[in-house]
Amino acid sequence: MANFKGHALPGSFFLLFGLWWSVKYPLQYLSQKVTKKSHRIYCFQRVDAIEGGIKIIFALIGMLAEQFVPDGPHLYLYSGENHDWVKLMNWQHTTMYLFYGLSGVVDVFTYISQAVPQGLDRLMLSVAVFVEGCLFYYHVLHRPMLDQHIHSLLLIAVFSGACSVMLEVFLRNNIVLEMFRAGVTIVQGTWFWQIGVVLFQPWGGPVWDENDHSNIMFLTMCFFWHWAAAVAILAINYTLAYWYVRQQKCDTGSQAAFLNGSDEE
Amino acid sequence: MANFKGHALPGSFFLLFGLWWSVKYPLQYLSQKVTKKSHRIYCFQRVDAIEGGIKIIFALIGMLAEQFVPDGPHLYLYSGENHDWVKLMNWQHTTMYLFYGLSGVVDVFTYISQAVPQGLDRLMLSVAVFVEGCLFYYHVLHRPMLDQHIHSLLLIAVFSGACSVMLEVFLRNNIVLEMFRAGVTIVQGTWFWQIGVVLFQPWGGPVWDENDHSNIMFLTMCFFWHWAAAVAILAINYTLAYWYVRQQKCDTGSQAAFLNGSDEE
Amino acid sequence: MANFKGHALPGSFFLLFGLWWSVKYPLQYLSQKVTKKSHRIYCFQRVDAIEGGIKIIFALIGMLAEQFVPDGPHLYLYSGENHDWVKLMNWQHTTMYLFYGLSGVVDVFTYISQAVPQGLDRLMLSVAVFVEGCLFYYHVLHRPMLDQHIHSLLLIAVFSGACSVMLEVFLRNNIVLEMFRAGVTIVQGTWFWQIGVVLFQPWGGPVWDENDHSNIMFLTMCFFWHWAAAVAILAINYTLAYWYVRQQKCDTGSQAAFLNGSDEE
Amino acid sequence: MANFKGHALPGSFFLLFGLWWSVKYPLQYLSQKVTKKSHRIYCFQRVDAIEGGIKIIFALIGMLAEQFVPDGPHLYLYSGENHDWVKLMNWQHTTMYLFYGLSGVVDVFTYISQAVPQGLDRLMLSVAVFVEGCLFYYHVLHRPMLDQHIHSLLLIAVFSGACSVMLEVFLRNNIVLEMFRAGVTIVQGTWFWQIGVVLFQPWGGPVWDENDHSNIMFLTMCFFWHWAAAVAILAINYTLAYWYVRQQKCDTGSQAAFLNGSDEE
Repeated sequence: MANFKGHALPGSFFLLFGLWWSVKYPLQYLSQKVTKKSHRIYCFQRVDAIEGGIKIIFALIGMLAEQFVPDGPHLYLYSGENHDWVKLMNWQHTTMYLFYGLSGVVDVFTYISQAVPQGLDRLMLSVAVFVEGCLFYYHVLHRPMLDQHIHSLLLIAVFSGACSVMLEVFLRNNIVLEMFRAGVTIVQGTWFWQIGVVLFQPWGGPVWDENDHSNIMFLTMCFFWHWAAAVAILAINYTLAYWYVRQQKCDTGSQAAFLNGSDEE
Repeated sequence: MANFKGHALPGSFFLLFGLWWSVKYPLQYLSQKVTKKSHRIYCFQRVDAIEGGIKIIFALIGMLAEQFVPDGPHLYLYSGENHDWVKLMNWQHTTMYLFYGLSGVVDVFTYISQAVPQGLDRLMLSVAVFVEGCLFYYHVLHRPMLDQHIHSLLLIAVFSGACSVMLEVFLRNNIVLEMFRAGVTIVQGTWFWQIGVVLFQPWGGPVWDENDHSNIMFLTMCFFWHWAAAVAILAINYTLAYWYVRQQKCDTGSQAAFLNGSDEE
Repeated sequence: MANFKGHALPGSFFLLFGLWWSVKYPLQYLSQKVTKKSHRIYCFQRVDAIEGGIKIIFALIGMLAEQFVPDGPHLYLYSGENHDWVKLMNWQHTTMYLFYGLSGVVDVFTYISQAVPQGLDRLMLSVAVFVEGCLFYYHVLHRPMLDQHIHSLLLIAVFSGACSVMLEVFLRNNIVLEMFRAGVTIVQGTWFWQIGVVLFQPWGGPVWDENDHSNIMFLTMCFFWHWAAAVAILAINYTLAYWYVRQQKCDTGSQAAFLNGSDEE
Repeated sequence: MANFKGHALPGSFFLLFGLWWSVKYPLQYLSQKVTKKSHRIYCFQRVDAIEGGIKIIFALIGMLAEQFVPDGPHLYLYSGENHDWVKLMNWQHTTMYLFYGLSGVVDVFTYISQAVPQGLDRLMLSVAVFVEGCLFYYHVLHRPMLDQHIHSLLLIAVFSGACSVMLEVFLRNNIVLEMFRAGVTIVQGTWFWQIGVVLFQPWGGPVWDENDHSNIMFLTMCFFWHWAAAVAILAINYTLAYWYVRQQKCDTGSQAAFLNGSDEE
């Protein structure tokens, strides 16, 4: 949907996932550092499965929205009358959501069955991000300069995210990679909102001059301010997670000593 | 051969190999997980050698077809009369097949002799895929836009395949990489068919308008649908392999207990 | 600041850090090789924290200089009167310094708290260098040819530095990577000076002809001479560090034998 | 030197090194597999030092040839009379040789002193190859199409060589990487000769038409034939090395049994 909502929707999805990951991975890392209990690992695996489920739901919402908005294609791909394709933009967005949906399915199966090899969920996520990047790349190739530039900045976040997730196939549970992933996902989310605001002025205001070079210079810089903000968010959430885990540790200190014998592997 | 058959032939080769790998690697991975018997590993090594042999045969068929079709070069490279090169397209395709043939030869030698260092077969395969990609890149540089675009999408599959095989040099027997390889090979195969269908209409129908931008948008998206289909095929074959291995395990449970003492390493 | 000082200032910062690293890392590596005392490792960790502090100070100096020079933006970003952005160049440079400042903050926190995961400081440094590279890339896209070329050579040093620091996330304390980092940082520093000299002639002399292709050829070559000089500096400092460590070892030989029992882990 | 000799000279250097490596590394690998004697490792280390020395000599020959050929710059860089640079082409080639010379120096020092960290010799070689590639890239940017294409093919060999040597920093003594290095070096050598032959017709014959697209298509393909030939050479030399090592093993079988006690570590 080439309007504000069509950018705010995926932006919110990415932002939610990014923020969630910026809380979850520090918690997981710090609690594993403190206690070695296998019970917690299992608990986080269940969280992964739920995450997969939410991915599927988000992807379905996205696909349905793209297909069934009033000016959407309503599942028609080719119109015999006009001898032309129907609303290819919406179809391309549907394809992007589809791959995130597939990634969610793999996440769920990884939890259900031991037979699914480790790392496949990360590979599928990486492919989904990469597909998003590729589609965007061809998407904006023949657009006005400002439009192209603002989307090409998004590609920096998308492709660096795809690469870092690809590394996670081989370096699983690496907190640095996970934090980086959370960071670029937050940036992607906020930048989607920024694109919507710049191109469609949801709250009114003058249209941005597409030929003014200083607008492009500002947006380049603004993109990295989003990044700096994402770093700040990560730092805050990491600190909160740290305090929470230390608090938990004190509270459960005596309990743990009692239970240690029974639930350790 | 710049016609439908010239795309269907390599497409079928890639498709066959991709499908075969999508069955073989899950079987190998799952059966190794279940049993630790060295006998099976040997069995799969023999399969690698047969695969190498089939690669050589496919490469020979491809080379002979490119050279000896009625409008082929018949092994003439330079025509003294016209002071010009003869059918360079066919020669380029011959070169691509040649490298896959070399890869097959290295596969066979890896099986025959212990002296060939491990990983050399993967390196040679990676080089073959890379050479294919490079030749395609220069191949389509000065073609009409639709033609160029549809081939450049192929390059995504080719180069990501080359990279993943290159990684296998160092991370041998990594099921995730092997599944990825199977996937991109299937995509390459089906996309070759798609190229043939789009550019040469084997079953009639209107010619695709090369200047219509929406055709290009559709094909971009279509490429990733092929990819999604390949993921689905991989998932199905993996599941079938899983059921087969579990069935085998139950059947041979008692036998294994009996044999374990003799053929274990 | 698009003048000589605006290039000499960051150039000096990079040069100082590069030279310091070219002394510090050989010392660290060679002294660890000689003695296994944990006391030294702690000592070098404190040095890392001080380094982080100096990074923050340098970044603050750079940001303040960019904002409050007479022709700077003085923290105004948008001018309501002219409906235009204010001094975006200076704002972009401020953004670059900001990320180096963030990297310094992460360095300090890594020292203060055990909870910060190892490798995060390197990731942040890598991101800072990468952001610098990206901003430069868009920065010089529409400049005269000589200006663009001389900055694009800088990008070689910047991006290879970003990649090598990224590798350090996973291969920490790898002396080869650390020496490489020191080398590209020295090159970056001296090249900033070179850019200032070529574009602004601080000591007078004729203006460089921007359209003369031989100037571009010379600068390409000159960049790699800087690199060769950096290699020579690294070699000299490594040798000095080697002699110093060997000298230390002889002096403390008897002491060490005495202390070994008490401060070993 | 923009003539046949200026391409034949570096071509011969690369060819000699490539052929030598295609013999040395198989010998080293296979003899280490057969015997575990530390004496042999020392022997190969001495060979590395001699190699470094030869690199230095070759680099000196190259630099002197580029400077002191009749139409060379004779060490003059800037001519005050013409207010212009002197023979920048030759200076660029001198720079390329310089870095190979530096690589040779690091090789020698790695042998002499234990203090030089392992991997630094590979890093320096990788940088030398990378510098060669960068200089070539800017070198040919504004040349006729055929000239540019034939050099850009060379860049494929150069940059893949630089990457593979870079990997050797971390994966030292990996036979697959070493064979790959030998292969690309042979290709680089023979392709330098090919460039000389195509552009300067040392043995007479008609000049190649620079605007004929089929010439470019032929050369693309021809480049990969060089690669196939390099693979064949590697295979032959590997086989010869294998026979030689097996022969040696039989001959020294009884001796080894006698000596084993004394020179084993």
